[in-house]
Amino acid sequence: MSESPVDVGLLTPVAVGNDEPVTDAAFLAALVHAEVALVRAYEIVGTAPAGTGDAVQRALIGAAPIDPAALAEASVAGGNPVIPLVSELKDRVPEDVRPWVHRGATSQDILDSALVFVARDASDLVAGTLREVAEALEDFARAHRDDVAAGRTLTQHAVPTTVGLRAANWLRGVRRAEQRLDAATRALPAQLGGAAGTLASFVEIAGRDAASRLTAAYAEVLQLATPEAPWHTTRWPVTELGDALVQAVDAVGVIAADVATLSRTEIGELAEGSGGGSSAMPQKRNPAASVLIRSAALRAPQLGATLHLAAALAVDERPDGAWHAEWPTLRELLRLALGATAHGASLVRGLRVDPEAVARNLTATGGLILAERLSIVLGPIVGPKRVSGIVRAAGKGEDLDALVEEALVEVGTSSVDVGPLLDPANYTGLAGDLVDRITAPRENEDT
Amino acid sequence: MSESPVDVGLLTPVAVGNDEPVTDAAFLAALVHAEVALVRAYEIVGTAPAGTGDAVQRALIGAAPIDPAALAEASVAGGNPVIPLVSELKDRVPEDVRPWVHRGATSQDILDSALVFVARDASDLVAGTLREVAEALEDFARAHRDDVAAGRTLTQHAVPTTVGLRAANWLRGVRRAEQRLDAATRALPAQLGGAAGTLASFVEIAGRDAASRLTAAYAEVLQLATPEAPWHTTRWPVTELGDALVQAVDAVGVIAADVATLSRTEIGELAEGSGGGSSAMPQKRNPAASVLIRSAALRAPQLGATLHLAAALAVDERPDGAWHAEWPTLRELLRLALGATAHGASLVRGLRVDPEAVARNLTATGGLILAERLSIVLGPIVGPKRVSGIVRAAGKGEDLDALVEEALVEVGTSSVDVGPLLDPANYTGLAGDLVDRITAPRENEDT
Amino acid sequence: MSESPVDVGLLTPVAVGNDEPVTDAAFLAALVHAEVALVRAYEIVGTAPAGTGDAVQRALIGAAPIDPAALAEASVAGGNPVIPLVSELKDRVPEDVRPWVHRGATSQDILDSALVFVARDASDLVAGTLREVAEALEDFARAHRDDVAAGRTLTQHAVPTTVGLRAANWLRGVRRAEQRLDAATRALPAQLGGAAGTLASFVEIAGRDAASRLTAAYAEVLQLATPEAPWHTTRWPVTELGDALVQAVDAVGVIAADVATLSRTEIGELAEGSGGGSSAMPQKRNPAASVLIRSAALRAPQLGATLHLAAALAVDERPDGAWHAEWPTLRELLRLALGATAHGASLVRGLRVDPEAVARNLTATGGLILAERLSIVLGPIVGPKRVSGIVRAAGKGEDLDALVEEALVEVGTSSVDVGPLLDPANYTGLAGDLVDRITAPRENEDT
Amino acid sequence: MSESPVDVGLLTPVAVGNDEPVTDAAFLAALVHAEVALVRAYEIVGTAPAGTGDAVQRALIGAAPIDPAALAEASVAGGNPVIPLVSELKDRVPEDVRPWVHRGATSQDILDSALVFVARDASDLVAGTLREVAEALEDFARAHRDDVAAGRTLTQHAVPTTVGLRAANWLRGVRRAEQRLDAATRALPAQLGGAAGTLASFVEIAGRDAASRLTAAYAEVLQLATPEAPWHTTRWPVTELGDALVQAVDAVGVIAADVATLSRTEIGELAEGSGGGSSAMPQKRNPAASVLIRSAALRAPQLGATLHLAAALAVDERPDGAWHAEWPTLRELLRLALGATAHGASLVRGLRVDPEAVARNLTATGGLILAERLSIVLGPIVGPKRVSGIVRAAGKGEDLDALVEEALVEVGTSSVDVGPLLDPANYTGLAGDLVDRITAPRENEDT
Repeated sequence: MSESPVDVGLLTPVAVGNDEPVTDAAFLAALVHAEVALVRAYEIVGTAPAGTGDAVQRALIGAAPIDPAALAEASVAGGNPVIPLVSELKDRVPEDVRPWVHRGATSQDILDSALVFVARDASDLVAGTLREVAEALEDFARAHRDDVAAGRTLTQHAVPTTVGLRAANWLRGVRRAEQRLDAATRALPAQLGGAAGTLASFVEIAGRDAASRLTAAYAEVLQLATPEAPWHTTRWPVTELGDALVQAVDAVGVIAADVATLSRTEIGELAEGSGGGSSAMPQKRNPAASVLIRSAALRAPQLGATLHLAAALAVDERPDGAWHAEWPTLRELLRLALGATAHGASLVRGLRVDPEAVARNLTATGGLILAERLSIVLGPIVGPKRVSGIVRAAGKGEDLDALVEEALVEVGTSSVDVGPLLDPANYTGLAGDLVDRITAPRENEDT
Repeated sequence: MSESPVDVGLLTPVAVGNDEPVTDAAFLAALVHAEVALVRAYEIVGTAPAGTGDAVQRALIGAAPIDPAALAEASVAGGNPVIPLVSELKDRVPEDVRPWVHRGATSQDILDSALVFVARDASDLVAGTLREVAEALEDFARAHRDDVAAGRTLTQHAVPTTVGLRAANWLRGVRRAEQRLDAATRALPAQLGGAAGTLASFVEIAGRDAASRLTAAYAEVLQLATPEAPWHTTRWPVTELGDALVQAVDAVGVIAADVATLSRTEIGELAEGSGGGSSAMPQKRNPAASVLIRSAALRAPQLGATLHLAAALAVDERPDGAWHAEWPTLRELLRLALGATAHGASLVRGLRVDPEAVARNLTATGGLILAERLSIVLGPIVGPKRVSGIVRAAGKGEDLDALVEEALVEVGTSSVDVGPLLDPANYTGLAGDLVDRITAPRENEDT
Repeated sequence: MSESPVDVGLLTPVAVGNDEPVTDAAFLAALVHAEVALVRAYEIVGTAPAGTGDAVQRALIGAAPIDPAALAEASVAGGNPVIPLVSELKDRVPEDVRPWVHRGATSQDILDSALVFVARDASDLVAGTLREVAEALEDFARAHRDDVAAGRTLTQHAVPTTVGLRAANWLRGVRRAEQRLDAATRALPAQLGGAAGTLASFVEIAGRDAASRLTAAYAEVLQLATPEAPWHTTRWPVTELGDALVQAVDAVGVIAADVATLSRTEIGELAEGSGGGSSAMPQKRNPAASVLIRSAALRAPQLGATLHLAAALAVDERPDGAWHAEWPTLRELLRLALGATAHGASLVRGLRVDPEAVARNLTATGGLILAERLSIVLGPIVGPKRVSGIVRAAGKGEDLDALVEEALVEVGTSSVDVGPLLDPANYTGLAGDLVDRITAPRENEDT
Repeated sequence: MSESPVDVGLLTPVAVGNDEPVTDAAFLAALVHAEVALVRAYEIVGTAPAGTGDAVQRALIGAAPIDPAALAEASVAGGNPVIPLVSELKDRVPEDVRPWVHRGATSQDILDSALVFVARDASDLVAGTLREVAEALEDFARAHRDDVAAGRTLTQHAVPTTVGLRAANWLRGVRRAEQRLDAATRALPAQLGGAAGTLASFVEIAGRDAASRLTAAYAEVLQLATPEAPWHTTRWPVTELGDALVQAVDAVGVIAADVATLSRTEIGELAEGSGGGSSAMPQKRNPAASVLIRSAALRAPQLGATLHLAAALAVDERPDGAWHAEWPTLRELLRLALGATAHGASLVRGLRVDPEAVARNLTATGGLILAERLSIVLGPIVGPKRVSGIVRAAGKGEDLDALVEEALVEVGTSSVDVGPLLDPANYTGLAGDLVDRITAPRENEDT
């Protein structure tokens, strides 16, 4: 067709370069693959003659390619691309094997199987990228295990933390997302049910016994899970995958949120390896990867919600719109997850810490980032009121060391050494231990 | 690039054939148009020499086309396509006019203006289609003004209504959506602010006076509204358009919901002119347009929510992700609105009423669809208890006419004529008047 | 305070009677419980004197109750209820144990632990109710294993299915939701990290060794999971629970969607045990439980999305708004899940099948619900064209039996017995086997 | 009932103290008001005897109050509170006027009218608060018209802007939201249609003529707009209000986003008048109002989406769940808007600028915040390469003034005065003019 493609990535830079597995061409290939797989499944259960699958496959390899855009156009009348696809396929295969194409199947069998097939491959890539992010984070967290930095709550300096602990926390989210995604991906089932999910057509064609084995054979060819039963309107495989993809985007989204914040001009603790430039303002070091990841993180949750709505409204033996709403939504989620995690990996690999900025910021409150510690340590010695007075005075600019020293002298205590007391490095609690625990090599992630 | 396009419509059949105005190619053309418009604006305010705009335009017409996919790829590093576009454009124009390309502008000026330009054109198409839907509905509502039909609440027959009133109510939603969309479209402003929305670069380049007139000139070239000020982080133009687009999809969505329901095999009151077929089950008359429209109606609201989130998180003078989240989201909303309303128009134009089914369903409760009327009319005559008894007996299958007759005889009333009392056509209230009022020719829709 | 409560359920009937576990009073009790648990944890690790926890608990039991509304009012200034709660609690306990109250803790430690504590209990109730739904569905599916009914796709009769298989499919969704919810609930961790998640305050107070054991002790008292580390900004425990709650609502939502549809006046195959009445229209048998469940199913997904957004935007060591957005959202999700599943249980338990309506609907297409079968069986005998002709003629009202008989006579076939061929009961495929497999007693659900 | 209220605000601090207009008690009062209004409307059209409305009103004033919680409980069976309310009301009024209570009405007439009544009052409050925010912003923007500050894009310093322009941009969003909200509120119509929206019951009771005037009379009593026709399933009044409420929250949300960012410890340009404290960390000046507002801004868009879904799925003459999903959703949106705008007003009124921090940050890039200006001004004089070299050198810490001076000397230019060139105050473009224009007194806001 003469119509230009709707989307080549111009408005979704976060995904460009990583969305090949979820293009319409990939979906079309998966649809064809699902049709061929059905023929092979008939062969496996002994209904179709040996060689039928190969014959179909061979014919399609040699035949004219099917144009995704033309197929899309032909799909409008019936509302799904499988209807015109079947006639395209039948045109392309020899007469003797033609009856085996799409035999007994319903559009949803093929479309769902293809959707899940594409999703499986794309999700595996996302999970692999999450593992790369995790590895990079392990290194980063270990390397910065003891870099003391300002901890911030509600935008304000609270107490010290470490660069390493922050990264270790990112790591936990990434690892968990990878596990969830892997579990959801492994559970993705092939779809085979016939017109209303009873497999009646298959029983009619192949007999009860062969029909009973057909779904497992089909799933085996597609290397997908064998479902307990057709899941035409039992859509948890889709929502669970959607939830896991959103979780994957969340996991890199929170890294991006921190990196964008901590690379602000005034904060400057972190910098992306290759920030985006600006022709007119060369001083800018835009956290470009973070920005792109965040653009995905703001979109993914609402896409996940749409999948759940479709699941909850999946009426009858095939719903009147809810099913169709899933297709582009799941694709866009896969696409965002592919793009956001890929940028997450390069972001983390290139992430640089500016130790001077970290140190400078740590002193921004004139030592008051240790106010909590003063309360705990000095409170029992000089009294809480005095501690409050010290903090107040320091807040107005007086020297905190001197104030503390003075108070200790007054009560005649020599047990407290002011220097170490006011050293943020001495108030990071279990941060180092937590980093060690989180980054420790682990046998088996699959909990 | 060798990568295949992500999306040619295969997974979004609702939009196929109607999404040309929002393709990436259309966006690229709009980006170029926005750049040329800026040069022309400089000419209008007297800064650029006369003829500069034409020279740029001419050079671009003669130059090699820019590949949207390649541009998309080049946009990743900086996070937006305008950065690489500017260098592509500069390469294509003569040296003497080159400095005027993108002069003083920031990427957001061009991207927002292009986004709004595309949105304006697409929204005008949507509004036009809504007017077509409205016209078709007016005819349909008038034609079926007095077709008495079962009114249903919470899935159950309640009291009679008319086919015409139902359609007139659809019409009200469609008209309102068209008005809202038109208002939001007319308000779409050009964007021109320079790096941080102060127009400082333009003042430096053109002087204060010309810079003061530059935005209006720019808006004039683009035929967009002149903004009160740059709106880099004041995003109501985007959310208001988004809300109006969702409302447009809602308006046809509710038609689709009713048509899908009323064309159920057991109900059969309505049928789409050209229902989608099924090769294996030729008896099916799938409400294909309704299904496609519903697939859009389930997705649009969450896209609208993303635009609002982006608006509420539009921090600084350009936000770190929220802005980028708008682009594909607004495009998808435009696309769904284009597709859903187009299917809405053909659906309504082809919509057929099966008068027999309408009449048959009206009798499905054995006259009890008039139970409310019996309470009102007979209650005062035979007492509410007796009415309840009649309704109960009729609910068990006894003949309602006879039961009512008997009760009236018992109390010796001859003032009530049972036939007309139990005729649903006599209990449609103001349905006809409402249809007349709603479908009356109107001077000026723009309230 | 004199202000009346915002919400006693008037606008959320789906949850009324089932929301006690998630009231503000329940949250307040959990907040107090979390504070007491911290004191007990100090005791367990040997930092606080034996008996401190009991002393605090005893004092609170004897003290004036804390008014949730007053606490809510006091929480505005600081943005969370823990700040005023601590001072309320300190006022209520003896001076000697007072220092142990909230010692070293940050508001988020207490609030998150309380949130999770309430969520754990409420989710356990939801999971229990899902098990009840599942049990009722097992019985229902077995009882109607062989009730042949029209299968519908895209609102149209497609091929036969069984009432039992439809219910078995509902069952699969309910079971899966229960498993997911149980897993998410078991993973819910206590929160303890101190101001910025390093546990520095606890180390200062209790020493490194005791502090290292404090979180596990705290989790033990609360009977929650021990986290790998504080999860102040690592929010998958919240999103995973949210996803599972949405999935639970989806699972009963799809039942409600089917019941609402199949109890339509014209369809009448199913009826809720106790449909909602209408005073004026006593003939109505509103599917009231389905309606309420659907009201929840339309709301839950967007609440789940909000939790994900909050997770992806959880910047710093405590975010500036994202955390606060979680509280009411998670509560509302718990509430909807409690209500929707409770109505789901009573709906399924009371669900009635009208066998006459089921049988009547099955004949609505004059046998054409078997068109697919005719293609498969007769196609090879009389040719596909002839089958199409038969179906077309039957679609116009001719007698299908006669048409088939005639065609078979023409080709001189006696191998096909028309009666059984056109009996829908002979075209339900593996429906019965699937019901058996799905409803078979299972050892261990926890896959 | 013994059950405690679900929600007294403990988990929604943003709304506490401002949610009185949307409590369940307020809704109950509005439901009663709607019922009384119907009696008065009958009086106005001449159907009910003069004095009937007063008699009903008087009886209700004297009668025992209705408990919202008990009513909520009674509403579960039928799925809405109007059914039990009617019987409560009938119990409370004298026998002679009893028949006029709820006469001819359907639950949806009363519930929708009450919903809209409450929404109207609450929205008017929100709009009033937005006007207060706008007034405070006008003052703030004028007061800081010429405070030069760093403009930031993608988190990085870009070029200078002014504190006043930033505030003026907030103002534009607030004003626009107020206009939209006011328009949506003014359009809110009373609901009166009877069981299926035909007004048949009213025609039966009052005759065609009086019934024709009844809706206008009813709307007049409620001081709501008169609808063109009943809008039982034509839900744009609800979605338009919802959209406007989300827009209101967006408008203060973007202020909160900026304030939270600019009050970060390292930035410190802004501070809330009364930041939330922390007992343990007195140095913290939490932007508490911003945090609360942001908690609302992250939630509101998804609530708006639910209203649209409900509108698009409003099937039949009353939908099976979609309608019920609107009630709590609209209430929560009203509540968030009430709370967020109230905090917005106090935030803006108390907002303080730290001029030193503003000035300090402006120098953070060593003058490179003027890099764009250098390109524009010096480019033509010393050549773009030289400018790049200067910027690069300055980026490494060399003195920018000296570098520029040196370059100018080299080319022998004396026309450029380096001091003014590098003064950010000279590169704020039209910022001042824009502030003047935006804050200028305006005749009529209602564009």
